[in-house]
Amino acid sequence: MEQPLSTDPYKGVRDFYPAEWAQLQGIFTKIRQTLVAWGYEEYNASPLERAELYEAKTSEEIVREQTYTFTDRGDRRVTLRPEMTPTLARMVAAKSRELPLPLRWFSIGNRFRYERPQKGRLREFYQVDVDLIGLAEGEADIEILRIASAIMRECGVPENAFRIRLNSRALLTTACRVAGLAEDRMREYLRLLDKKAKMTPESFSEAQRALSQTDPLVLIESAEETSDIGIEKAKVLALIETLKAHGVGNVVFDTSVTRGFDYYTGIVFEVFDTSSENPRAMFGGGRYDNLSSLFGSDSLPAVGFGIGEVTFSDFLETHGLLPNTRSSSADVYLGTPTQKDIPLAQDFADTLRAEGIRVFVNLTSRTLGDQIKDAVKRGIPFFVAYGSQEQAGGEVRVKTLSSEEESLVPVAALSKHLRP
Amino acid sequence: MEQPLSTDPYKGVRDFYPAEWAQLQGIFTKIRQTLVAWGYEEYNASPLERAELYEAKTSEEIVREQTYTFTDRGDRRVTLRPEMTPTLARMVAAKSRELPLPLRWFSIGNRFRYERPQKGRLREFYQVDVDLIGLAEGEADIEILRIASAIMRECGVPENAFRIRLNSRALLTTACRVAGLAEDRMREYLRLLDKKAKMTPESFSEAQRALSQTDPLVLIESAEETSDIGIEKAKVLALIETLKAHGVGNVVFDTSVTRGFDYYTGIVFEVFDTSSENPRAMFGGGRYDNLSSLFGSDSLPAVGFGIGEVTFSDFLETHGLLPNTRSSSADVYLGTPTQKDIPLAQDFADTLRAEGIRVFVNLTSRTLGDQIKDAVKRGIPFFVAYGSQEQAGGEVRVKTLSSEEESLVPVAALSKHLRP
Repeated sequence: MEQPLSTDPYKGVRDFYPAEWAQLQGIFTKIRQTLVAWGYEEYNASPLERAELYEAKTSEEIVREQTYTFTDRGDRRVTLRPEMTPTLARMVAAKSRELPLPLRWFSIGNRFRYERPQKGRLREFYQVDVDLIGLAEGEADIEILRIASAIMRECGVPENAFRIRLNSRALLTTACRVAGLAEDRMREYLRLLDKKAKMTPESFSEAQRALSQTDPLVLIESAEETSDIGIEKAKVLALIETLKAHGVGNVVFDTSVTRGFDYYTGIVFEVFDTSSENPRAMFGGGRYDNLSSLFGSDSLPAVGFGIGEVTFSDFLETHGLLPNTRSSSADVYLGTPTQKDIPLAQDFADTLRAEGIRVFVNLTSRTLGDQIKDAVKRGIPFFVAYGSQEQAGGEVRVKTLSSEEESLVPVAALSKHLRP
Repeated sequence: MEQPLSTDPYKGVRDFYPAEWAQLQGIFTKIRQTLVAWGYEEYNASPLERAELYEAKTSEEIVREQTYTFTDRGDRRVTLRPEMTPTLARMVAAKSRELPLPLRWFSIGNRFRYERPQKGRLREFYQVDVDLIGLAEGEADIEILRIASAIMRECGVPENAFRIRLNSRALLTTACRVAGLAEDRMREYLRLLDKKAKMTPESFSEAQRALSQTDPLVLIESAEETSDIGIEKAKVLALIETLKAHGVGNVVFDTSVTRGFDYYTGIVFEVFDTSSENPRAMFGGGRYDNLSSLFGSDSLPAVGFGIGEVTFSDFLETHGLLPNTRSSSADVYLGTPTQKDIPLAQDFADTLRAEGIRVFVNLTSRTLGDQIKDAVKRGIPFFVAYGSQEQAGGEVRVKTLSSEEESLVPVAALSKHLRP
């Protein structure tokens, strides 16, 4: 006898049993509904990408270091996508002349990172990417922030449970330039800023002084309205006022928000959980106006964000907002008094299905009592026994499993009675 | 200036632009609706699997040879799943004590094969896997075949456009045993049988004689009812009669159907396109009662099938049955007379969205005429201009883009007018 195979999945990835998959899809359904209501279209691509796509200057170093990259049998270097934006830029660049701009696009799918598995960090996770491509800052930025807010509302999140922290890369780079930071120092500074919340004020100041004499954040704070920095700062503050006027009241200016990726050029933002036990960034995004130029096509302005499923589910769970889903979506469990009744029950089930009722038919030799227990275990709301007697009598007994109430219903009226 | 990056996807995989993704999802929606109507639950898993899962005797050799397998940085051998059944068996074995049997499960997702790309063969393709686990032959086999037929009906396929070719591995192995074929010769014989349709009768006979003196197919044809072969044959014929009695009239007995995978133990079937220009197997499946025993758990009987998206889409296209989908699912294009009207239009759009209308708002400086052209290009059915004038007047002009008809509608009645 050979050694049995392990039933474990590959390290750091998950199996989605029906209840878990239904829950994840329940969240995505709400997000998808919001996006479709705003006229967004879903796209997708293979997780297999040419490795060079990530070797370009699109991604944070750490992402490039954490890719699954291997060589195929044709000596091509292949990467399992760690994020969607480079793929999106590639697809848009490939058809930039035929696609009607602006593009309102989203994608929901898995991404891969070769990380040490730990809470909230998996080697495969799902993400929703939302992008508005072909429009400069202004109305497009407003729409993207309104959509982030609309998704939260659709998921039942009250406005005081989260805050949108807004900043601007244009503002930061202007301040860095005025402070005299060269390109590479600027990038180091942004990385430092990203860690600011986790540092003491003293250690931040020390690290900042090692990079430049003047702190760009101080320049931002004290900027005069007519200066280059002041003009960029005023744009951010005006955006916050506009959003307030359109019902998004929880946006705050936060100069420490930078986002990891190098490709951002305009606004950057983070949606932040305000709960005191667990304050943290849940998801975010920003404007990136130069990405498609990597492919030699004209530069296309773009703004978007991505919602990682792990952090977002955790947030909804903490706030008791996970959507109610069950693994079986059947409306009724059709029991069979005897095994001989199964063909009759299947035919009857077919007439119900044609009327839009989802039917789970018993195919076992269990007693009716055990079939009812099975229906309860599966979370199916109604139980109906059907066999030759019911067929002859033209009536069935419908059991509501939550209340154990029973009612006699004519066969012809059953689908109306069961309709969810 | 650096060399621009190529916009091509990785070799043998596809980019799904919104129109293509909508079409694929349109097909999956019909299949999903059918499965949910039969009480089936959706599951999923990561495409990353431990390589040993495919090195077990679950798969046809050719599948094992065509996997994407690589070694991760922790020296684990990883395979991108070429098929779903080994993953399903692993997941079920892992929780065999807690899952309520029978399981009616399905999964829709991508699979990977390292093949030379050619028509109908891609390195990444989507597949629907449907399985009924925990029940022996009989009602379970009937249900699976009825579902295959129900999916075709839901997709609008007339019964004469396809045929279900049914056979039995139990019948074939019994006949092989009586013909005196040992285990390895039997496997060779099944492989030969799989190719029978593409061979001349002479070359098939010659190859068959090289394996055994007696042709198992001749034994099946001439079997007496009470013999071992006759009993297995009678089961297949009885199943065909039962299906006929339940509205599935296009099932035929075909002793040459074997299916590729080694793990089948009972019925095997193929859904076959009957069109004269392009007769071919579209999808198929069968009973596999021993797969979970690889994991050291009790053997669980199972029956199922898989629908590959590429062949199935081709079939629907040939028959003019691809579902009508469009990339934009917006119900209305909200045009703006001037750019200043955009914030007003977005607020108005929000009230429509709250009433279930999907709204695409213009954010560009285009003229209304160009906005109408844009709406037509995107396939959005209605166009409504909205600005300060409409806000003040309380009425909008709704343009039906297919007919160019126009009607004046009070703002409060618009969502009712647009509802799809």
